[in-house]
This record gives sequence, C-alpha cells and structure tokens, in this order.
Amino acid sequence: MAAVTEIATFTDRLNSAVEENHSLLCVGLDPDLDLLPAAYSYVREDPRAIAEFNAEVIAATVDLVCAYKPNLGFYLANGAAGVEALEATRRMIPRHIPVILDAKVGDIGSTATAYAAGYFDTWDFDAVTVNPYLGEDSLAPFLRRPDRGVIVVCKTSNPGSGDLQDLAVATASGPQSLAMTVADRVRDWSDRYPASLALVVGATYPDELAAVRGRCPDLPILLPGVGAQAGDLAASLAAGLDARGRGLIVNASRGVTYAGTGQEGRWSDHVRSAALALRHAINAARPS
Amino acid sequence: MAAVTEIATFTDRLNSAVEENHSLLCVGLDPDLDLLPAAYSYVREDPRAIAEFNAEVIAATVDLVCAYKPNLGFYLANGAAGVEALEATRRMIPRHIPVILDAKVGDIGSTATAYAAGYFDTWDFDAVTVNPYLGEDSLAPFLRRPDRGVIVVCKTSNPGSGDLQDLAVATASGPQSLAMTVADRVRDWSDRYPASLALVVGATYPDELAAVRGRCPDLPILLPGVGAQAGDLAASLAAGLDARGRGLIVNASRGVTYAGTGQEGRWSDHVRSAALALRHAINAARPS
Repeated sequence: MAAVTEIATFTDRLNSAVEENHSLLCVGLDPDLDLLPAAYSYVREDPRAIAEFNAEVIAATVDLVCAYKPNLGFYLANGAAGVEALEATRRMIPRHIPVILDAKVGDIGSTATAYAAGYFDTWDFDAVTVNPYLGEDSLAPFLRRPDRGVIVVCKTSNPGSGDLQDLAVATASGPQSLAMTVADRVRDWSDRYPASLALVVGATYPDELAAVRGRCPDLPILLPGVGAQAGDLAASLAAGLDARGRGLIVNASRGVTYAGTGQEGRWSDHVRSAALALRHAINAARPS
Repeated sequence: MAAVTEIATFTDRLNSAVEENHSLLCVGLDPDLDLLPAAYSYVREDPRAIAEFNAEVIAATVDLVCAYKPNLGFYLANGAAGVEALEATRRMIPRHIPVILDAKVGDIGSTATAYAAGYFDTWDFDAVTVNPYLGEDSLAPFLRRPDRGVIVVCKTSNPGSGDLQDLAVATASGPQSLAMTVADRVRDWSDRYPASLALVVGATYPDELAAVRGRCPDLPILLPGVGAQAGDLAASLAAGLDARGRGLIVNASRGVTYAGTGQEGRWSDHVRSAALALRHAINAARPS
C-alpha cells in the first residue's frame, strides 16, 4: 500500500483544538502599551518585550482556547521592534493551537504573493484575515495554500460597517447586501480552492450572522466584538453555531488580556479567570 | 497681527514636489529579493540591506519624482529585518519629497488608531493607502490628521478588480458601480475631514479613471499599473489629469527600479534613464 501524505487543513487543526480544549474561545493578542500593567512599564522602552507579556497570557490560557489571534496593527505601531515581538509571540505558541494573523490584507499581483510568503512562510501563521474589496485574484496566493486558512472580512463589528457592507447590490436573484454577496463568493471559493475558507462577522450584528450561517453552513466564522464591543454572546451563539455546535471562533482581546486592570493579586490569575469564565459561558450555550 | 501657524497639507507638499521636479512620476520602492542585481546578492542573507539598494534608487531619481511609494508587503515578507529596511528607507528620503506608504490598511476602533499611530507617527509617512470596505469610522483615525494624506482604494488595476468594485449598487440617483460609490464617499470625506484625500485608480481602466475625475475634479489620483501592468499611459493622462494639468501621481515600480536587469553598465544609470524617460513621456502629454 502506498504511503499517503495527508495535509492537515486549517479547519482540521482548529477543530482538533476545539475538541482538545473543549473551547470556541480565541484570545486576541493586541498589546496596547498604554494599558500594560505597571510591572511591564519597561516595555515602553523596548517593545520587543511585548513578547514577555504575551508569554504570560499564553501560559495562563493555552489549555482554554481553540486559537490565538494577534492583530498586526498593534505590533506595527511599534515599528521593527514590534514585529520582532510578533515573530517571537508566534514561535512561543505550541503547534497544536492555530494562530490567526489579523491583518485584513488585500493587495494585487506580486504584492499579494509577497504578503502570502511573509505571513505563511516567513512568519508561519496558520491563517490570515483578508479584505475582499480587490477581488478574487488578489486573494489567490492565499487561497492556493492547502494547509492554511483564509478568513474573509464579510460584516465587521464596528458601527460604520454598513457604509459599504450594507449597500444593496443587484444580483441575478434580486438585490442583496454587499456583505451577503461576499458570503456567497466565499462559499464559492471554498469549493474551488484548496485553502480552508472562513468569514469574519461581528457579534454586534446577529441577524447578519444568521444569514451568513445560512449561506455557508459548513464554514468557520470568526466572531469579534464579544467583550469590549458588547456584542450579545447568547444571540451570536444562537445565530452562528453550526449543526454540530461549533464553527464559531469567538474572539476576545482586552476583556481577557487586560482583565487584571485595577485588580489585586497576580495579573495572570485574572487573565486565566476571565478566559475560564468566557469559555464556560460559550459552552453553556452549546448543545451538549 | 497674530502669528498664524499654517500646516502644510499633503496635497500642498505633493504639488510643491510636482513643481520643483517638474514631474508627476512616483517611484514605487518594492524590493523583490529574487530580482535584485548580482551585486546585491548579500541582501538575501540580511534583508536590512534592502535599504542600501533603495538608497541607490533614491539617489538616482530624487530630482525626477513627485513622491516615493514603498509597498509594505515587500518589506513584511522579510519579517522584522524588512521592517528595519523600510524604516531606514523612509529616513533617507529628503523631507521635500512626500513618501506614501502603500499598505491598503483597513481595520476598526483601537486597531485603526494603532495603525495610524504606527504609519504616521512611529514611521512618519506623509500619506497611506487605505481600503474602504470597513466604512468611514474605520478610516477616521487617518482622516483626522490635517498634515497627512489618505489615499482611498477605489478601482484597482488588477484583472479581477471588478469582482466587487464593478457591482451595481442602488443609490438615490439610480444604480452605479461600487467603485463610483466609493469615489462619491471620498469627495464627501474631503469636505468633512482635515486630511488630504486622494484615490487609487488603475491605469488599466481609463473609462473609470475619467468617471472618477469627473466626480472628484480637485482630488489627486494615484495611478498604478503604468509599466509592468501595461496600462495605457496616454489614455490615462487624457482621462485623469485635472484642469491644471496635474492631479495624477503616476506610479512605476519595477519598470524603473529593475531597469538594469540584463543590461550592461551601472545599475543606477539604467534606473535614472528609465525615470527620465517616463517623466518625459508624462510631461509630453501634459498641457504646457
């Protein structure tokens, strides 16, 4: 019998972490130097030390999450030193937990190829968020990677997301929003490209989340906007879980990583408590 | 008489460079390690040395351009070392030539604020390209900066740009493309925010370029797709110049920076010759 080499897809690796840690929680690693605890005041002098703060957060949560999601903006804001911290952060996360780079990238031709090489090869992230505005060919260098995830921004959690995303677009079956048109494209790409496709839908818009789940029954949905942005967790879970009671990557950033702000005791204890509470709240709403 | 402090806007600084160098040419600084000349083979070992290659390109063209435009993707592809090269490149460009960071950034809330701090303050770029898909509030941290430029991606030069940008959107005055809807928003933002607004329209779509110029008679348009992408320069200039015979930022990247490929003689001589020829071809089509 010939040996068969199977490539584990991003979705397979995500689901393995979901099972192992019994969790749909994704912790966002978005270091804001102004919010760091007093013990980390030296990080302002050398942002490479952001990695040390992240190391504590990771150690306190690594058995409680299905993924981590650093947002590129918080690292680039600190220049090359911030990027060094991002690279170090990625390396310290164990291989069985997928790491999503939130970059919302979208560019064309050789530039898109350069980004894909950087994010997937130089930095070795498991998945990346992308912006669809520039069209399918702009995403192709990402979509062609069988072992990686491509998470397409569809309906974002911010108050102004409707400016373009809610515009009514003419389609063969009548008008629908631009965001739903993007969801249809993502489902189509998931049939035609080897990468694992997923979507970003904000927890602040549960109706749109239900509509995306209806269009894309089998694709994971990254759900930001649960903690600091006050999206309704229960409504989002009801709208967004798939038929197997998973399929959501519920992101919380500051609500977990800065849970120790103004609290007594060890910072990392508060981080762990917040992650435990959120994991539990999510699981309580999942079918058993 | 009270002293008045005037902030020079990005558009003012751009127009000063246009006049001083009699040029609408913008050179894209997009280092591709696989295309570097043999003399720079050591850059593959240490991508920080990309800055040395860029230094030669800048020295050969600094009196021939109205702006430089590094694309973030080509630097991030090399990790923290690439970002160090980007920072060094920005520092070596003299203050009277504006530098546009091509990042096509679009993110929300505190992340958008972090990006704006990084690109405008930590790195000190004069302008940045942005993606409009996430809506007005996602761009507000950039739009609030009176001394900076915000260049909104409208109609891109790639073959698949129409996937979303050409979709017909319902508006009060009837259906129009998503790209034209974006152009209308940009004109509106230019009335309501202090930053200098501009648009990206690919040279490969002269009809759309003419339509954007009609909607936004006074805004600069960044025009990629002239060299390697074979957009028609003459048609683009006819469609995109403003009433004063300027208002276009004509970008060329590889056609200039890699003009020495396969040629005898000094690399930087070929770079300068290519920039001179392109500046001349552009000026020949401008009203005198």
